Amino acid sequence: MQLQQALDTLDDVQRKMYAFGSATSALYLDSVTVAPKDTAEGRGVALGILAGESHKLMTDPALAEALDCLAEHREELDQVRARQVEELGRQVRVLKRIPAEEYMAYAQLANQSSDVWHRAKETSDFELFRPCLEKLVEYKRKFAGYYDPDMAPYDALLDQYERGLDREYLDRFFDVLRQRLVPLIRAVGERPQPDVSFLHKHYPAQQQKAFSDYLMEVMGLDRAHCTIGETEHPFTLEFNNKDVRITTNYRESDVSGSMYSVIHEGGHALYELGVCDEVQYTCLAGGTSMSIHESQSRFYENIIGRSRPFIEAIYPKVQSFFPQQLEGVTAEQFWRAVNMAQPSLIRTEADELTYCLHVMIRYEIEKQLIGGTLAVKDVPGVWNSLYKEYLGVDVPDDKHGCLQDSHWSDGSFGYFPSYALGSAYGAQMLANMEKDIDVWGPVGRGDLSQVTGWLREKIHKYGSILTPAQVLERACGQFDPTYYTDYLTKKYSALYGL
Amino acid sequence: MQLQQALDTLDDVQRKMYAFGSATSALYLDSVTVAPKDTAEGRGVALGILAGESHKLMTDPALAEALDCLAEHREELDQVRARQVEELGRQVRVLKRIPAEEYMAYAQLANQSSDVWHRAKETSDFELFRPCLEKLVEYKRKFAGYYDPDMAPYDALLDQYERGLDREYLDRFFDVLRQRLVPLIRAVGERPQPDVSFLHKHYPAQQQKAFSDYLMEVMGLDRAHCTIGETEHPFTLEFNNKDVRITTNYRESDVSGSMYSVIHEGGHALYELGVCDEVQYTCLAGGTSMSIHESQSRFYENIIGRSRPFIEAIYPKVQSFFPQQLEGVTAEQFWRAVNMAQPSLIRTEADELTYCLHVMIRYEIEKQLIGGTLAVKDVPGVWNSLYKEYLGVDVPDDKHGCLQDSHWSDGSFGYFPSYALGSAYGAQMLANMEKDIDVWGPVGRGDLSQVTGWLREKIHKYGSILTPAQVLERACGQFDPTYYTDYLTKKYSALYGL
Repeated sequence: MQLQQALDTLDDVQRKMYAFGSATSALYLDSVTVAPKDTAEGRGVALGILAGESHKLMTDPALAEALDCLAEHREELDQVRARQVEELGRQVRVLKRIPAEEYMAYAQLANQSSDVWHRAKETSDFELFRPCLEKLVEYKRKFAGYYDPDMAPYDALLDQYERGLDREYLDRFFDVLRQRLVPLIRAVGERPQPDVSFLHKHYPAQQQKAFSDYLMEVMGLDRAHCTIGETEHPFTLEFNNKDVRITTNYRESDVSGSMYSVIHEGGHALYELGVCDEVQYTCLAGGTSMSIHESQSRFYENIIGRSRPFIEAIYPKVQSFFPQQLEGVTAEQFWRAVNMAQPSLIRTEADELTYCLHVMIRYEIEKQLIGGTLAVKDVPGVWNSLYKEYLGVDVPDDKHGCLQDSHWSDGSFGYFPSYALGSAYGAQMLANMEKDIDVWGPVGRGDLSQVTGWLREKIHKYGSILTPAQVLERACGQFDPTYYTDYLTKKYSALYGL
Repeated sequence: MQLQQALDTLDDVQRKMYAFGSATSALYLDSVTVAPKDTAEGRGVALGILAGESHKLMTDPALAEALDCLAEHREELDQVRARQVEELGRQVRVLKRIPAEEYMAYAQLANQSSDVWHRAKETSDFELFRPCLEKLVEYKRKFAGYYDPDMAPYDALLDQYERGLDREYLDRFFDVLRQRLVPLIRAVGERPQPDVSFLHKHYPAQQQKAFSDYLMEVMGLDRAHCTIGETEHPFTLEFNNKDVRITTNYRESDVSGSMYSVIHEGGHALYELGVCDEVQYTCLAGGTSMSIHESQSRFYENIIGRSRPFIEAIYPKVQSFFPQQLEGVTAEQFWRAVNMAQPSLIRTEADELTYCLHVMIRYEIEKQLIGGTLAVKDVPGVWNSLYKEYLGVDVPDDKHGCLQDSHWSDGSFGYFPSYALGSAYGAQMLANMEKDIDVWGPVGRGDLSQVTGWLREKIHKYGSILTPAQVLERACGQFDPTYYTDYLTKKYSALYGL
C-alpha cells in the first residue's frame, strides 16, 4: 500500500466514524430529551446496527493494512498523523478481539438499560434495573479481557478511560486524600454551619432557565454553537468543535443544583469548543481523557464558580434574577452557603470537600463488581453501608442511593475515579495558572476570558493531539495530589475559621 | 446465489437502511428543534457521509445479485417479499444512475439549504436563499434525468412521489377543480362572512400546548409512542410504527393555526402508527405515497376536524381551555369561524375551499422551474403575480410569499400536488366509509375510534405492501375528483347558505 493511499484510508475511516458517532449522539440526545417513552426497542435496533457498522469499519483489513503502512513510515508523519495512527491502532487492536455480534448486542443492551434505569430511578425500583446491571457487568468483565487479557478486569477498564491508570495508582491517590481530608472534614464538622435556607426557597424553573442563560453568557459560551437542554442527569455532548450541547435539571427547591450543573457542563463544553479545527472529524477531535475533561468541568464549577471573587462579581446579577428569594442575603452569605461542607446523599449535589468520598464509594463498589467479589443483588446493601461508614448518612431509598447516577446504566465502569482525579488535576493547574497570569483580578470582575484563554492554550486546543500525561505535564508538571489537599485546606479553613 | 442467501441479503440491507434512515431523521429533528444555529456545517458532513453509505449499500452488487435471484424465484415469494423486491429493485435502478459523489454533495446541500432557508424566511430575504435554490433546482433537473431519462424532468420527479403521476394527469385534475370550484368560491365571496375575531384574541402558547395534548388524546394518539414538538414549519417524522413525532407552531394571535396543524400532523402520525409490525425495519414500513399520506392528514384535519359534529363534540372542552377568549361564543359560531373561506397568503393557514389554489400556484411554478422555463431569480415576481391573479391578494414580502414553505429548501419538488390529490382522495374515501359504518354518530360524541379503525383496516396497516393505486382501489374504487368537488359544494353551500 502506498503512503498516500494509506493516508486517504485513514481520513475516510475517521470521517465515517465521525458520521456514525454523530448519528449515535443524535439518537441518544433525542432519547433522553424528547423521545416518547416506549420507543427504546426500535432505537435499539438502529443503534445496534450503527455500532455494528462502526465495528466493521474499524476491523476492516484495509484499515489494518493502512495503519501498518503508516507505522512503517512513522518518521515521515507529522505529530497529528502520528497520534492518529497510534490512537486508531490501539482502538483497532482492542476491537479486533471483540466479536462483532457481542459488540452489537452490547450496544443494544446499553441503550435498553438506559431506558430501564430511567424508569427504575423514577420509581426507586432496583429490582427493575438489576437484570440489566447484571448483564452489563457480565459484558464489561468479558470486554475487559478483550481490552487487555493480561490485566485484572477492572484495571483494563480504567486503562480505557486513562492510559496507565490502575487500582494501585488510585488506591495510592485516594489514600493521600483520605489522610489529608478526613481530619479536615472532621474539623469542619465541629464548626457552626452557615445559613443555607435561602438556597431552598421556591425558585421557579422559568427563572432558573433565564439564570442558566446568564451563566452561559458569563462563561463565554457562544449560543450559536452551544445550547442547553433539560435531562434527568446533566451531561455534555459534543458533535464537533462548533456544535456542543449541555443539559441541566431544574429543581424548584434548590437554586444551586442547576447553577453548578450548568457551570460544570459549561466547563466540559468550553474544552470541546476550544479544540482546534485541524483535528475535526478525526479520532483526535475530542478531549484527551475523562479525567482531563473533569479537570476542566470541575475547575469552572468549584475553583472558579465557588470562589469568593467570582461570587462577588456575579452576585448583583444573581439577585436580580431572584429578588424575592435573595432579599437581604449578602454576597458573602451566598458564597458561604454554596460552599457548605456536609456529608450528603447525592454525588452531583455534594460539596467540594466531601465529594471525593462519594467517588470513593463508587470506586470501591465497581472495583468489586468487575473484580467478581460483589454480586449485583448486593449493591444496594453495600452502597448503603458504605454511605453510613464513610459519610455517616442513612440512604432512604435506591433513588437517592445506588440508582442516582446514569453511568453504570450505559456500561461506564471505571469512569467515576476520573471525577476525583480531575478535581486534583485542576487544583494543580490553578497553582501554575497563578504563576502565569492574574487569575483573580479579572474573575473578580466577572471576566473569565483570561482563565479560559490560558486553559485553551495549555489544554483545550490540543484535543487529543497530546496524551493525557503530556497535557498534564504541559499544564502543571508532574502530578502531585497535595496541591489539591492544600487547596482544599486553605479554602475550607477560611470558610470555617479553622 | 441461493434463495435463502438472497433473502438474508435483502433483510440485512433493509435493516441497515432503516438504521441510516433513523440516524438521518434524528439529526434532522435535532437540527430543526434544539440544535444551535451555526452548526449546519458539521451536521452536513455527517449527513453527507450517511447518505453516501446508504448509496453504497443500495448500489452494492451483492444486493443487485440478490434482487435478480429473487426476481427469478418470484413465484415462491409471498406478497410482502414480492413487493420488497419490486420496490427495492426500482430504487436500486434509479440510484445506480446517480453518481455517489453527486448524491453525497446533494445531501450536504439540502441540509445546508434548510438552514439558510430558515434564516432567509426569518428576515424575508429571498436573495439569501436564492443561490441555494438555484443549486437545488439544478440538481433536481439533473436527478430527474437519472430517475427516468425518457420522461420530461418534472414528470420524472412527480413519478417519484406517486407512481404514474404526470403533468397530464394533474392538469386534468386541476382543470376539474378549477371548473367546479371557481364559481363556488365566487358565490361564497358574495355572501357575508362569519365573525372570526374571537379566533384572534390572545391565546398564550402555554394554554395552546395543553390544548394540543387534549387534541392528541381525542385523536387516540398514544403519547408513549408519539410526542409533539415545536418547529417553524409543522411536520411528522416517523422512526418506526412505535415511534412517531409530530410538531406544530404556536402563534398567540391565532388559536386555529396550531389546532389544525396538530390534527393534520396527527393524521399522518396515525397512518404511521397503524402500519403492521410485519414490515417494520423494511422498505415497506412507511405510508405508501405522499398523496395517500396527505389523504389521511387532510381527512382528519378537514373532513373530520372541521365538521360540525366534531366541533359540537369537543367544543365544551375547547371552551374550558380558553374560557375568557371564547366567552359567549357558541359551537356553531366556532364551526363557522374555522371554516371561513377567504383568499389568503399562507398555504398552511388557508381554508379548505381555497387551499387548492395555493397548491396550483406552487405546481405552476415548480413545473416551470424544473422544466427550465422559469429562472429562480424570477420566482418572487411570478409568485406574487399568481397570488394576485388566482387569489386576488397582494403579497407584502417573501416571508409571506415564496419563502413560506420548507419544501423546496430540502429539494422536494413535485410534492405539493400531493396535498390537492390527497384532499380529493379523502372525500372519495369518506363516501365509501359512510356506506360501511356510522361515521357521524360516534364523531358527534368525540369518538374517532371507528373512523380510525376503518382507515387502519383499509389503508394504514398495509404500509407500502399495497401500491398507492391498490390502496385507493381498496378504499374507494376508481379515482373520481367530482367526489371532492361535490363534498365541497355541499359543505360550503350549508355554511354560506347558498
